[in-house]
Amino acid sequence: MIRVGLLGAGRIGQIHGRNVAASGKARLVAVADALPDACLSLATDLGARAASVEAVILDRDIDAVLICTPTDTHADLIEAAVKAGKAVFCEKPVDLSSDRIKACLAVVAKAGLPLMIGFNRRFDPNFAEARRRIAAGGIGAVELVSIISRDPSPPAASYVARSGGLFRDMMIHDLDMARFLLGEEPVEVHAVGSCLVDPGIGAAGDVDTAAVLLKTASGRIAQITNSRRASYGYDQRFEVHGSLGMVRAQNVPTSTVEVATGQGFLADPVLPFFLERYAAAYRAELDHFLSSVAAGTPPSPSGEDGLKAQLLADAATHSQQTGQPVRLTL
Amino acid sequence: MIRVGLLGAGRIGQIHGRNVAASGKARLVAVADALPDACLSLATDLGARAASVEAVILDRDIDAVLICTPTDTHADLIEAAVKAGKAVFCEKPVDLSSDRIKACLAVVAKAGLPLMIGFNRRFDPNFAEARRRIAAGGIGAVELVSIISRDPSPPAASYVARSGGLFRDMMIHDLDMARFLLGEEPVEVHAVGSCLVDPGIGAAGDVDTAAVLLKTASGRIAQITNSRRASYGYDQRFEVHGSLGMVRAQNVPTSTVEVATGQGFLADPVLPFFLERYAAAYRAELDHFLSSVAAGTPPSPSGEDGLKAQLLADAATHSQQTGQPVRLTL
Amino acid sequence: MIRVGLLGAGRIGQIHGRNVAASGKARLVAVADALPDACLSLATDLGARAASVEAVILDRDIDAVLICTPTDTHADLIEAAVKAGKAVFCEKPVDLSSDRIKACLAVVAKAGLPLMIGFNRRFDPNFAEARRRIAAGGIGAVELVSIISRDPSPPAASYVARSGGLFRDMMIHDLDMARFLLGEEPVEVHAVGSCLVDPGIGAAGDVDTAAVLLKTASGRIAQITNSRRASYGYDQRFEVHGSLGMVRAQNVPTSTVEVATGQGFLADPVLPFFLERYAAAYRAELDHFLSSVAAGTPPSPSGEDGLKAQLLADAATHSQQTGQPVRLTL
Amino acid sequence: MIRVGLLGAGRIGQIHGRNVAASGKARLVAVADALPDACLSLATDLGARAASVEAVILDRDIDAVLICTPTDTHADLIEAAVKAGKAVFCEKPVDLSSDRIKACLAVVAKAGLPLMIGFNRRFDPNFAEARRRIAAGGIGAVELVSIISRDPSPPAASYVARSGGLFRDMMIHDLDMARFLLGEEPVEVHAVGSCLVDPGIGAAGDVDTAAVLLKTASGRIAQITNSRRASYGYDQRFEVHGSLGMVRAQNVPTSTVEVATGQGFLADPVLPFFLERYAAAYRAELDHFLSSVAAGTPPSPSGEDGLKAQLLADAATHSQQTGQPVRLTL
Repeated sequence: MIRVGLLGAGRIGQIHGRNVAASGKARLVAVADALPDACLSLATDLGARAASVEAVILDRDIDAVLICTPTDTHADLIEAAVKAGKAVFCEKPVDLSSDRIKACLAVVAKAGLPLMIGFNRRFDPNFAEARRRIAAGGIGAVELVSIISRDPSPPAASYVARSGGLFRDMMIHDLDMARFLLGEEPVEVHAVGSCLVDPGIGAAGDVDTAAVLLKTASGRIAQITNSRRASYGYDQRFEVHGSLGMVRAQNVPTSTVEVATGQGFLADPVLPFFLERYAAAYRAELDHFLSSVAAGTPPSPSGEDGLKAQLLADAATHSQQTGQPVRLTL
Repeated sequence: MIRVGLLGAGRIGQIHGRNVAASGKARLVAVADALPDACLSLATDLGARAASVEAVILDRDIDAVLICTPTDTHADLIEAAVKAGKAVFCEKPVDLSSDRIKACLAVVAKAGLPLMIGFNRRFDPNFAEARRRIAAGGIGAVELVSIISRDPSPPAASYVARSGGLFRDMMIHDLDMARFLLGEEPVEVHAVGSCLVDPGIGAAGDVDTAAVLLKTASGRIAQITNSRRASYGYDQRFEVHGSLGMVRAQNVPTSTVEVATGQGFLADPVLPFFLERYAAAYRAELDHFLSSVAAGTPPSPSGEDGLKAQLLADAATHSQQTGQPVRLTL
Repeated sequence: MIRVGLLGAGRIGQIHGRNVAASGKARLVAVADALPDACLSLATDLGARAASVEAVILDRDIDAVLICTPTDTHADLIEAAVKAGKAVFCEKPVDLSSDRIKACLAVVAKAGLPLMIGFNRRFDPNFAEARRRIAAGGIGAVELVSIISRDPSPPAASYVARSGGLFRDMMIHDLDMARFLLGEEPVEVHAVGSCLVDPGIGAAGDVDTAAVLLKTASGRIAQITNSRRASYGYDQRFEVHGSLGMVRAQNVPTSTVEVATGQGFLADPVLPFFLERYAAAYRAELDHFLSSVAAGTPPSPSGEDGLKAQLLADAATHSQQTGQPVRLTL
Repeated sequence: MIRVGLLGAGRIGQIHGRNVAASGKARLVAVADALPDACLSLATDLGARAASVEAVILDRDIDAVLICTPTDTHADLIEAAVKAGKAVFCEKPVDLSSDRIKACLAVVAKAGLPLMIGFNRRFDPNFAEARRRIAAGGIGAVELVSIISRDPSPPAASYVARSGGLFRDMMIHDLDMARFLLGEEPVEVHAVGSCLVDPGIGAAGDVDTAAVLLKTASGRIAQITNSRRASYGYDQRFEVHGSLGMVRAQNVPTSTVEVATGQGFLADPVLPFFLERYAAAYRAELDHFLSSVAAGTPPSPSGEDGLKAQLLADAATHSQQTGQPVRLTL
């Protein structure tokens, strides 16, 4: 049994904490959080002890830590944890600064310990199955990837202000997904963005509606659209076109119920947000991390994947702000 | 070019008349109808002459007649037409009395001329394609057929009174379809029926909601449901289960438009009624009749098919009225 | 916390046992099973003690028992448990004999303790949501219910021999669902059945393909089809037609992935069998039982529901065997 | 009855010619084509006379001409026709040169005669219905338009060489559709393109796979993808997101048949190419032209619409070739 320490008892920390407890592969030993009540409550709930961040990192009986704290603490905690000999799972992003990420990855490399970044969508059963079909050759060589990702409603403007902007905060998931599906690194990024949903987001200097085009060296194309608004649920889909056909992974409806009347056939909205849509993905993601730690194999997506998605998000941000495409080499 | 005479210039006569004109395989020569204005109007419209029923039947320049007159004239007109040497297409049913149908078919057999009965649904492109898949072995041996057929709204009670009842008037199409799909004749009929839609139908001695079970000698089962009400359009579907899988033919929507809001995903109703849903079927049906006449091959469905569907409708009517299943040999 | 004892550590017992452990509303105290190894293994796994059936039933610290043993023990164990003051959840059926069920329910009534029967499908999120829509008036008055239920593959002939036959073993779930959806008791049952899937089932005196028509006093109609074979997964669907429209609950696909090639659009099979399809239903079912016990309210479906479904299954069996419809009053 | 002359008896000329003949609103008087046999054959077929282009244009008994000749003759013929007092319907594009289009439109404006450009997709019943829903406010203010358009297979390289390139030849339809749906003119165009399907297309200096981003002054975004390859049929879809929801118009399947086996649920490919998919659109398009001519109201899309789509195609071509976005004012 892998002994796990959890840093951060917020929404996402609770998900991972419960998944550790239910995994059958690991035991949650300790929980740390800046808010003592939240920490104690979750720890008690899951049969772990409440502890300080430092205590968790330094605890010799803990094999792996899950970093679910605010973004600006990620890089420091990763470094401290690998220096203390822990395997690390860290929520995306490692940092809002690519330079800081590079420095952190150097420390990780030196420590020689596994680091996995929480791009949970790779583990969505539908998305993972679609990629298996592509990898199995079902659609031939990939030519065009189209990703749609829409949040049900905009975040608070206060959150937006320290989020790094839509491309780093939201689209980074889709940029990682584009890399996951393209099978080749993008070399060019065109981005456009607008503030159409919430003027407060524009006032904070950000956009809430955006589209990106990526192109790889061999000419494969990916397009991504993001919006902070979707009345019909959390819209998470993609389709991939190849030389032999197309594979798509569609949304998951709230139920399979349909009502037919004179107005037509009304099917249910899609699952409302990430807690519902990605519940299975979070379980599979953690399972992969724990299995990798147990087997001594490198988990994926890696710190390098985290860096590359961040560099794409930086490029998209720059492109949107300057109105010019950005060329880059990952 | 086959020279065609049309008997009956009502709704269904107009459909067939126009399809003859547009077929490129035949020329509509004459139209007859008890209502002189309707007759003249359609004849003028289609470049044919208005004539009496007798004149059409006796016209030596006419090769084939389409009988689209009221049901109680069908058998007499079929007999007169084959005696006059015409190939005959007749709308279902030949007659409401099975005995009268048998007598009529004897006359047809003696004349040795082709008779085709208008079970248009066999020619619906979706239904025909589904049957081709079954015939091609795509689902193995047929085990279970399920047919749903619902009219958008009930007919006038006055129509119901002389219709022969729901099983002979409406379900006869589905009974023919069951034969078309089962690949084996039914030997047993269980029917239940209720008046749930329009009390006037009940007052006329009929039902408006019904279900039937058919069983063949080898044990294949078909079930059919009918209703005189469907708020979302003309509901016409079936599914067929076999030893290797299932094939189904679904409804045709009014459009492929979908609107997604907080209520969910609203797709359009299905095509409203038979004129829209079976427009292509009527064309294909007539094309088959004309091609058969041109080639000198027997058209299908035949007069025998008309009789067998009628016998099943009689059995269903009897079963519904007595509450007992009916065994029969077709 | 309700203290729960589990009788039966087989496939379904394991499901309920794990759901108790994960419910947060109850504690699994003891597990009993005729096979000591299975018993010990599950008990250890779930932090409960292994015990004899008698010990569980007589344990004063146990509030409720879950009966997941073979069918022929259900009635005796229900009686023993309620006599010992326990709330009881019992898998369907109470017994294969309706008389034995009646006797058992009399004992339960005398004891005044809650008895819930495991018609898990009522708790399927899709089915439950469909029924809420009906109850909310979304389709007006119910007129016609159509239920499709197909197992992926036939059971062993040895199982069939002591199963009570398809109507009591398999269709009983659909008969309960018909009652759940019709909103009125059936008064008439027509059944037909065939052996088309596995000759061994026929040799054991049973059918593997069947269809039933039910009619209520006011004329509402339900039709059910069952088959022991479905190549594309566990087929579990229904649709309900009312005066204003139709509601249907469709199957749950294995994933939302679709692959398009020259052959067409290939979507995934539906969930393979009941463990997958009804995982959420089993959780909701147990939650309802535990909540009812905690609140002191009668759980549903009740022992009476179990009896009525059994009487319908008896009637369907009789109808299939005699070829005659059966009238009954529930 | 409007008297119509048809210039061009090729594939698209035949469609329009037959639609005139079947319209009930106009009479096809004369057909002209550089190939005498094709001309005579179509004219005979439709009961019109074969004539020279000049004779058709100068015929005082002809009210309107349909220009279906090769692209490089369009502008000259439009000018000649309006000078001769004809209403003109012309297939897209007016010319491959925007300057030539402008000059042509000046001649049309001076003549004061109606000119309609054949952007047939606006008349597709699904697309038209989707736009009606948007216009009716069903999704609130438009924010994002996403258009997918894929041909089933690449054209001959010889065709490509004189086509003006993918953006002017193929995407021009989608650029017009984007204008139709955005409700606001684009001011910025980003395009990327690749040759992934047919190296011969690359050798001819063109791309076969492309994506474009458009942005309007108020920040609305449209994205379009094109490919010269789609194994599953002619892929023609869009979705439009607004402040209140989303409307989409999906493909039209070849049939509604579905086959379920162990591999899953196989639905039919979509309609194979434009003749099938846009048959109804061509009829509605011509009907609009004829109705406008009869009523004396300006038809739409106009020559200006043709010019604007061409300017967008020019901008996309430039953007793709230079790797830079293009700003423009329509």
